[in-house]
Amino acid sequence: MTRDRLYLYDTTLRDGAQTRGVDFSLEDKILVARLLDDLGVDYIEGGYPGANPMDDAFFAAPRTQRATFSAFGMTKRAGVSVSNDPGIATLLSNAATAVCYVAKAWDYHVDVALKTTLEENLEGIRLSVEAAVAAGKEAMVDCEHFFDGWKANRDYALACARTAHAAGARWVVLCDTNGGTLPDEIERIVADVATVVPGDRLGIHAHDDTGQAVANSLAAVRAGVRQIQGTLNGIGERCGNANLTTLIPTLALKPGYADRFETGIDAVALAGLTATSRAFDEILNRAPDAHAPYVGASAFATKAGIHASAILKDPKTYEHVTPESVGNRRRVLVSDQAGKSNLVAELARLGIAVDKADPKLDTLLARVKEREARGFAYEAADASFELLARRTLSSVPDYFDVTSYRVMVERRFNAIGDLVTVSEAVVKVSIDGEVRMSVAEGNGPINALDQALRKDIGKYQAEIESLVLVDYKVRILDGGTGAVTRVLIESLDTRTNRRWMTIGVSENIVDASFQALIDSITYKLVKNGAAGR
Amino acid sequence: MTRDRLYLYDTTLRDGAQTRGVDFSLEDKILVARLLDDLGVDYIEGGYPGANPMDDAFFAAPRTQRATFSAFGMTKRAGVSVSNDPGIATLLSNAATAVCYVAKAWDYHVDVALKTTLEENLEGIRLSVEAAVAAGKEAMVDCEHFFDGWKANRDYALACARTAHAAGARWVVLCDTNGGTLPDEIERIVADVATVVPGDRLGIHAHDDTGQAVANSLAAVRAGVRQIQGTLNGIGERCGNANLTTLIPTLALKPGYADRFETGIDAVALAGLTATSRAFDEILNRAPDAHAPYVGASAFATKAGIHASAILKDPKTYEHVTPESVGNRRRVLVSDQAGKSNLVAELARLGIAVDKADPKLDTLLARVKEREARGFAYEAADASFELLARRTLSSVPDYFDVTSYRVMVERRFNAIGDLVTVSEAVVKVSIDGEVRMSVAEGNGPINALDQALRKDIGKYQAEIESLVLVDYKVRILDGGTGAVTRVLIESLDTRTNRRWMTIGVSENIVDASFQALIDSITYKLVKNGAAGR
Repeated sequence: MTRDRLYLYDTTLRDGAQTRGVDFSLEDKILVARLLDDLGVDYIEGGYPGANPMDDAFFAAPRTQRATFSAFGMTKRAGVSVSNDPGIATLLSNAATAVCYVAKAWDYHVDVALKTTLEENLEGIRLSVEAAVAAGKEAMVDCEHFFDGWKANRDYALACARTAHAAGARWVVLCDTNGGTLPDEIERIVADVATVVPGDRLGIHAHDDTGQAVANSLAAVRAGVRQIQGTLNGIGERCGNANLTTLIPTLALKPGYADRFETGIDAVALAGLTATSRAFDEILNRAPDAHAPYVGASAFATKAGIHASAILKDPKTYEHVTPESVGNRRRVLVSDQAGKSNLVAELARLGIAVDKADPKLDTLLARVKEREARGFAYEAADASFELLARRTLSSVPDYFDVTSYRVMVERRFNAIGDLVTVSEAVVKVSIDGEVRMSVAEGNGPINALDQALRKDIGKYQAEIESLVLVDYKVRILDGGTGAVTRVLIESLDTRTNRRWMTIGVSENIVDASFQALIDSITYKLVKNGAAGR
Repeated sequence: MTRDRLYLYDTTLRDGAQTRGVDFSLEDKILVARLLDDLGVDYIEGGYPGANPMDDAFFAAPRTQRATFSAFGMTKRAGVSVSNDPGIATLLSNAATAVCYVAKAWDYHVDVALKTTLEENLEGIRLSVEAAVAAGKEAMVDCEHFFDGWKANRDYALACARTAHAAGARWVVLCDTNGGTLPDEIERIVADVATVVPGDRLGIHAHDDTGQAVANSLAAVRAGVRQIQGTLNGIGERCGNANLTTLIPTLALKPGYADRFETGIDAVALAGLTATSRAFDEILNRAPDAHAPYVGASAFATKAGIHASAILKDPKTYEHVTPESVGNRRRVLVSDQAGKSNLVAELARLGIAVDKADPKLDTLLARVKEREARGFAYEAADASFELLARRTLSSVPDYFDVTSYRVMVERRFNAIGDLVTVSEAVVKVSIDGEVRMSVAEGNGPINALDQALRKDIGKYQAEIESLVLVDYKVRILDGGTGAVTRVLIESLDTRTNRRWMTIGVSENIVDASFQALIDSITYKLVKNGAAGR
């Protein structure tokens, strides 16, 4: 039996940008678009061209390779012709190949918010869609407040959908803008709409205000729609949008959907879903939701209790899908053998051959567990893990010792009476018993320490000339300024273009940063094959 | 038309205790039981008597006034008589007036996990229920893996349900133990079960592994069940249980449910739901989920954009329920797209009346935009925004000046030769021209500065005694240790239980933290109505 194609429309960069506390930089947007493009969604909505300089810059160039790049904006304003509407002009003159118009489908809002007539609103939809089609764009229409509108004035809501479709819109998207519609209502109303616009031209845009955005999207699919709008990790205004990170595996793996539908997400991309979700949280610099369906760290975790022992007998009867299918992993009280085989595999990946019987492997496993319990996250810091492994299994040359450091931040009035903040770091390094002191200023304590550390490591100095620090991330593992701090540093060798991540954990942010900085320099020297003293 | 009674069964203290990272103390359990009893749920499941000394102590006395207090445990073991089963004895001899037995309803698990015959399992259910009834307890049976069991062996799953009901169980609860069943399957399967056990004797126990625990519970209700099991804030194993905090308002307020059903939760308790949810997070000592349906801080928040100005015209058309009905509140977030009307509304909420024509408003708008362009995010820092607004529109008393500070982090060998890192801060504060110096150590530079700043602010000292710092977040706005750093600090007044967020932005993390700390202290003094010098 041939399966129907379901199209995934991502609005992380547009509706997701409405999330409280989320504010994407241009670099963030470019990174997110790449994540989504690699995942395999069909459409990536990038924002509103014309809304602000950042969105203008984002739409100045194509940002996708596989996905259709979409721009969001209003239908033409009442009282002006399409050709005289600057909003429409901006919307049709940028690198996006698709346009998604938002149009009111609730008579009340046409009246109150738009202050125009019902007829003018329909005319605006028609002319705007025709203009997009004439400009060679793929046109679609988000029918705002569609479900509330249908309840208030069914004929008018249907007229909006029919008008958009008749004017040539590829997709007519039914939006539950307030997020309050329930799955059974969605299914009933969508079925009604499908009598005037074919389901393969309909989309659903759901919000999570009753915790049912996923259920609402699936209900709409059952009733006939073939496009689903959503966001990564379900970010979005208020309670968020339909969570694509939850919908994608449900559509791909669950009976009733997997057998009836296909999406643009292949098994390989699906197996990368957990990593994609985590990478997105990294861009947002927020802790991942451990309880998120499919991709959460606890999604396949069983606490010691009535299930834990039984689960090992036959996991598949305790798991509705396999963790591997979404790139996640099972977490139960794993036997050291199980832990070991993961470790051996990881070491092999790093080119470190070790016998599974080697007792040093138990030592390494114990150290990793002990350190991860303290807040280290080695899956995010390959270089620090490799150093820990080499130190435990064989040895790492002893290049230099930082016998002491001092970092000072002072806020005071300078000579001309301005209040300034000065950061200075002093480090004492011993190489072959010879002690060198370096001092440096920076625009902050960590930067000063970084400068001072790399200023003079004697005979190794030349080896780190090409080492630059490209990213620095801080996460407070539990509230308060006294909490444990995790620092992740990404370094780049400008000569080989090789990148690596190092980690430090401490109650003291300077100390945590120091650990990660030292690991980065040491790793560089190891990779250079520099001989210790 | 008379409405059907729906019974709410809370398992926060039993299944919720399976949540990774959740570990209730006896005091916690007593507090949570009181919260739930005040809320008005019908049943409170307290745990497993006999499982550990803490649960024994909890079940030693009645813990509820209105709700039925329920104990959870296994049906009788195979091969022993009920009277000789110590588990059953413990379960029937405690302060709980109801007993909830967990029984396997999937033939596969009876075989593999229980290692008994299908007949013995049915017999165990029958005898255990009869024993509970004979002991004067209200008996119910959680049919574990019911939905997977029904798919594997419908007749046996139904036999388990029928046996429990025939033996006198008040409730036969259908459990989606693996959480992978979808709403349409739930509805179909429950309808089938309702042909052998009346719906008003059936319950549903759903998990959130596909993000649909709420939808699954509601689907079961539509198919006839009249008891819903769930937890506060949806805590629970893996992805959590059905979230009662979401289900309760949906049942009480949404068409299709509010008109057909009634629960034990009255309008007053409903209006306390947000407070109940936050109080529970306090007990768990974790930050509330801002995006939670109904009760999240962002559940009724709109970011400036296409909706923000319209929402003020007529909120009810933008909100599926009123925030007040669940004790939450509306917010329009200030952000770089902020328009004047949003600003005026937000100011009004803060109790700052200002004429829309007031030119100072343009100044404030310009300042917000300028500062947000530099990395400030006022939508996340209400207190810092209020201070900025008051300073711009009127004035904020000038309490004290920090004329200078110095923070030092030193790593060195201590007297006994251990390598230690010491953080020390010195601040110079001027109050009424009188200069005070304070010095403090901390486990990191920010903590040291925080300690020193709050050590002595002269005549204001008494006013900040109840001020504690509960959360500290750092975001590096663009890569590298030299990048701009944004610090968000959450403070708590332990006397009023009031929380507020302040923000600081600088290339220097110490400076950014300093700004946020000063804002927090100043805000506290403003709220106290302290007079400046």
